[in-house]
This record gives sequence, C-alpha cells and structure tokens, in this order.
Amino acid sequence: MSALPPRACIGILGGGQLGRMLATAAAQLGFKTHVYSDVFGPACQVTNTSTIAHYEDLESIATFAKAVDVVTYEFENVPVKAALEAQNFTPVRPSVKALEVAQDRQTEKQFIRSLGLPVAPYTTVENPSELLEGQNTLTLPAILKTARLGYDGKGQVPIDQAVDEQKAKAILEDVENAPCVLEQRIDFLFEVSVLIVRGLDGQVSTYDCPLNMHRNGILDTSIVPSKLPKAVQQHGFEIARTIAEALDYVGVLAVEMFYLGEGNVETLMVNEIAPRVHNSGHWTLDACAFSQFENHIRAVAGWPLGSTHRHSDAKMTNLIGQDVDAWRELASEPNCCVHIYGKPETRKGRKMGHVTRLAPLTP
Amino acid sequence: MSALPPRACIGILGGGQLGRMLATAAAQLGFKTHVYSDVFGPACQVTNTSTIAHYEDLESIATFAKAVDVVTYEFENVPVKAALEAQNFTPVRPSVKALEVAQDRQTEKQFIRSLGLPVAPYTTVENPSELLEGQNTLTLPAILKTARLGYDGKGQVPIDQAVDEQKAKAILEDVENAPCVLEQRIDFLFEVSVLIVRGLDGQVSTYDCPLNMHRNGILDTSIVPSKLPKAVQQHGFEIARTIAEALDYVGVLAVEMFYLGEGNVETLMVNEIAPRVHNSGHWTLDACAFSQFENHIRAVAGWPLGSTHRHSDAKMTNLIGQDVDAWRELASEPNCCVHIYGKPETRKGRKMGHVTRLAPLTP
Repeated sequence: MSALPPRACIGILGGGQLGRMLATAAAQLGFKTHVYSDVFGPACQVTNTSTIAHYEDLESIATFAKAVDVVTYEFENVPVKAALEAQNFTPVRPSVKALEVAQDRQTEKQFIRSLGLPVAPYTTVENPSELLEGQNTLTLPAILKTARLGYDGKGQVPIDQAVDEQKAKAILEDVENAPCVLEQRIDFLFEVSVLIVRGLDGQVSTYDCPLNMHRNGILDTSIVPSKLPKAVQQHGFEIARTIAEALDYVGVLAVEMFYLGEGNVETLMVNEIAPRVHNSGHWTLDACAFSQFENHIRAVAGWPLGSTHRHSDAKMTNLIGQDVDAWRELASEPNCCVHIYGKPETRKGRKMGHVTRLAPLTP
Repeated sequence: MSALPPRACIGILGGGQLGRMLATAAAQLGFKTHVYSDVFGPACQVTNTSTIAHYEDLESIATFAKAVDVVTYEFENVPVKAALEAQNFTPVRPSVKALEVAQDRQTEKQFIRSLGLPVAPYTTVENPSELLEGQNTLTLPAILKTARLGYDGKGQVPIDQAVDEQKAKAILEDVENAPCVLEQRIDFLFEVSVLIVRGLDGQVSTYDCPLNMHRNGILDTSIVPSKLPKAVQQHGFEIARTIAEALDYVGVLAVEMFYLGEGNVETLMVNEIAPRVHNSGHWTLDACAFSQFENHIRAVAGWPLGSTHRHSDAKMTNLIGQDVDAWRELASEPNCCVHIYGKPETRKGRKMGHVTRLAPLTP
C-alpha cells in the first residue's frame, strides 16, 4: 500500500468549486494537481495544469491519466467509460463502481437495499403504466425522480395524488421518458448527511453529521452539531461504513439520510449517496484542522487520514446567485468565513460561494 | 475607502512559499491572483497568472502593475525602484516606505529609535576604523550584520572579543566591505514576534505572540502561547502599532522582539521588522479561523479584517532541507498539520515546508 510522495500529481476530473477546494488541499500537502474539465472552471485557476476537453473524449482522458499519479473526481456524472479508460493507466479513486452506483437512482437504491440498509419505499418507472402501478403500490404522496443526471432538485416531479393514464403520459413526456424511480415521500423530522472518509488501507473516520436544509431544491444550510441523538449518529456512521466497504471506497463519501425520529421502525433512511466531497461538508474547512478536502486527498494519495475533530460549532450557508453580492456585509461579520469560487458570471441558481459562521464549541 | 470586489486581481511580487499561501488565501475570497517572480516558484503553481521576469525589469513591472488591482509583496528585498514603478499604475500595499525601512538595517534601527522605541545598542560600521570605534562604544559581545540583504543568519559575524585593526579589515573584507551595523548582543530570555495586521481604514488587530526558536540562524519553531506575561504582550502590541502607524502600513507586519524579563529597564527590545506575512505566523493557518495570509489579503484589498482569535494551542516547526523526507511519519502523527511547498528540489538549508502541531487551548 504505497503512499504518493509530495510532488506526485493528483488528477481531478471536474473543474468546479469542489475541484478548486480539492486542488488547494492537494497543494498544501505538496502535491501537483492537474484538472480535467469541459470548461475553464474555478478549479483551473488554482492548479498547475488544466486540460480542457469533453469527458467523452477518451483520447484526452488517456493522455490525462498517463500524466498523473492518481485520478479522482469531483462530480458523480463523470462517464463511466471515461473513468474506465483512465483506469487503464493509473488508479482511479474512489472506485469506478461508486460512480456506476451513484449515477443511476435505480442501481443506487437497489444496491443500498441489497446491503440490508433502509431506503424509502420505491418502485422503478420506465413507462406510464409502471407509474400507475407504482402509485398504487406506495402510499402517496410520492416523488418521481429521473434515474440519471438529476441534481439540485432537477428532474423531480411531486406526485401528491393518484394520476390517470393521460396525466402519467404527460409527466413522463416532461422528463423525456427517461427511466425513473417513484419514491414514497418520507415524513421525516430533518435531513442529515454522514461524511465518511475511508483510507486506502481501509481505515474509516467520520465528521460530525450536519443537519441540512434546502431551499428551492438546493442545499441552503448545514449546521453542526445537528440535533441527532448520539446513538443515531453512530447508527448513521455504521450505515455509511457498510456502503463504503461494499464499494471498496477510497476518499470522502457523503450519505444523505432522513431522520424520522425515535419510535419509528427505522430512525434513519438513506436518501442518496454522493461519491465525492460534499457541499454539506464545506464547514469542515473552517471548523476542523483537517477538512473534507484534505482528507479526500490524503485518502486517494494513500496517506493516513487526518483527524475529523471539530473545534467549533458551525453553520454553513450557500451563496446562490445574487446572494454573493452581499460579500461586503458578510466580510464585516465577525467569525464569518467567506468562500467565493471565482466564477466569471453570477447566474440565478448558481452556487457562487458559501460562508461558514463559527461559534464556540457546544460542550 | 473602496474595497476590491471578488474577481479583482491581487498582484503578488515574489513567488516563494509566502506568495503561495497568499495566493491560496486570495483565491478563497474569490480574487484572481497574478504572481511576479524571477523564477517559476511555489506560488506560480496556484495562481491564475504568472510573470517570470527580473525584479529590476521596470517594463515588465509596469505591465504587471497595469494588469492587477493592487500590488503586494512577499519579501522585503523587492527593489524600491520596482515598487515605485508599480505605484505609478496601481496601489502598492504595504507602503513602499515599509520596504525602504526594512531593507536596510541602518535605516531600520534609526527609524525605530526615532519613534522612541527600544532597540539594542548599536553603531553603524562602514570601514575598519568604525568597527574598532564601535566595539569600544558598546559592551561586547556584539554581532556585526550587513545592512542589506541578510536573512536567515546570512551576513552576520559574531564579535565576541575586541578585534585589532588587521582582524577588523579581514572581517569587513569577508562581507565585501558592505555597510553594516554592529549590534550589542542582548542577554534576553527568549525571542517573540508580534504579528500585527492593519487595515486600509487604520483598524489594527494582532495575533497571539509566538515564542520563536532558531537553529543555525534559521527559524526552527514558533510556539503559542508564549510564556510572555499578558502585560508585556500588550506592550509588544503597542510597539508594533506605533511602527505600523508611522509607516501608514496596510497588511500584516511582523516585529521580532527580544524579551529581557521583568526587572529590566526595557522588558522588550525590537530586533527587526518584516513588512510581510512571516514564518513565525504560519501556525495561524491551522490554529485560527482567519490566518495571517487571509488577513493580509483582506487588508490590502481594503476589506474588514477577520478575527485573530486562536482556537488551539500550536507549535509550528519548519521543515528545512531533508527534514521534509519525514513526510510519511509527520502525516501519521495525530493533530499534525502538514504543509509542503512544492519546491522542485530539496536543498540543504532550504525551507521545504512546515508542520503545525495542535493541542487543545490552554485555558
């Protein structure tokens, strides 16, 4: 199990803000970085080398993979073909299997259920009659979600009441008749995520679970400590560990979960997994000595993991679209750590940055 | 007093590890960075743009200054001519005066004394007879230091016993007959530095004073908290503030001081100033939510300063030369934050990185 020495080059598939924060963490440890992205994104501003090419361009992927010592990725929709091509030349961490599982909701739910872990009741839907059948199997309300390429609430249709055949057709046409899952809406108290990191040697560690709140389908706020009872947090960690081990996972894995409260058959249910550093872990940059970004890099480089200890309470809030225009006020606020991603243009719904407000540790 | 908005470009003169950590801090706040360096140094790996040219090349300096929104520097030996040329096109922060004062020990000592602040007894030496005269004026042992371009113990000759004319000639020939100061060796308890930051609006703030220990004339270790009594630390802060205000300083200023202990006429004496972020402040990266690098960038960009609060005790140790080969052991050590600068070659006496060992805050 060999660790990459400083001066080795970490290849990062994806040029967004997650890649930017990964590249910065890698540089701290003395690694070179090489970002592969389809546009000149925020990560390209802080890296040694960038390749700008399509993710489907396997020739460019091969050239990139040959030039680096390990490949990691910052988003789960990297084409599996590209990851497999890279793997011909250099290790890909986390595993390609993690990509395969995470980029298809049908595969993902089946995989999690196959591990004996709790997910919301669901059916797969590939045509109108399966939708009609599904809504009878489940207890409505439910949500229809496209199996692939949905994120930040995109590709989701609420099914609050039973629909008829005509409506079912229309709904599926709206999502271009893509394969879907119909998920029973869970009556949960709040959402949390487990941020687990697994080293190349199988060592696992986890950050405190943040409580996550969304606005317009996009993560708005993550708070630590969450109000999750300690035993439930430990249970969440075991769930995430089971998933990570089943995927022979290396790096940071985020597992989003619903907390249903005590007295239910299941107190936690897995919502979805993200095989990468995660927006709900951004507070680790400011509230921990070792951030999720550094621990992801340590893991994929085969280094021992850093502590996941938290030295402060924290509330992370995303700056979406015009929110970032308040930078002046945010910078004036005491104990408010400002992170702006350097995107060339402010757009509605676009993640432009985030702030983490720190407070002394709750004893 | 206008603050630079995110996406503005911070120009950094100097491409070393200090420039690297400044560029990273600037990127966090959404700034672009442009590094000007005479070699492709560590900072050039994490910046949007690099200019590789001599510091004396005023044409390149002008082009650089026109391309950025503010110019700062990471080392005090930037030629004053270059800083003045840059200033024709864009603000230079900290002030050019700070450069002028800091790059000549004669000017520096005179300046500090002119503010009524305590420095070790010294005389200026420009020829052998001034050395003979100086050693009679002062109480030996003393140290002869070249006025310009000395750092990390270079250009220093101990004068433990009175020398004769022939020896005086030889000593001065050894330093190429450069202008010098002869400084009385102070019998101090330990060395500290005050890391003060002054905003564009004159707001000042200071980090906890580290206790500094040297090895072979190079900083080895900085420890917070130091054993400096609280009142003495406050006194050190007032000394640093007086200097910063006299220089109309913007950014982080390090003032190295000797602590002589209670019961002396002066408990603190100024050793030297560094008009930049400082090696003895590297622990702020890991033990504070707002590091010296971020606060320097905030200051030169006209932003409000971030808190200088420390959340952990810290011991920073430089990795000099082959020390960096121990990266594997250092990475395994709990609560040891590893920073490696990405220099292409390990050389004896070269600062290759540093580690900060964290411990819970001493109450």
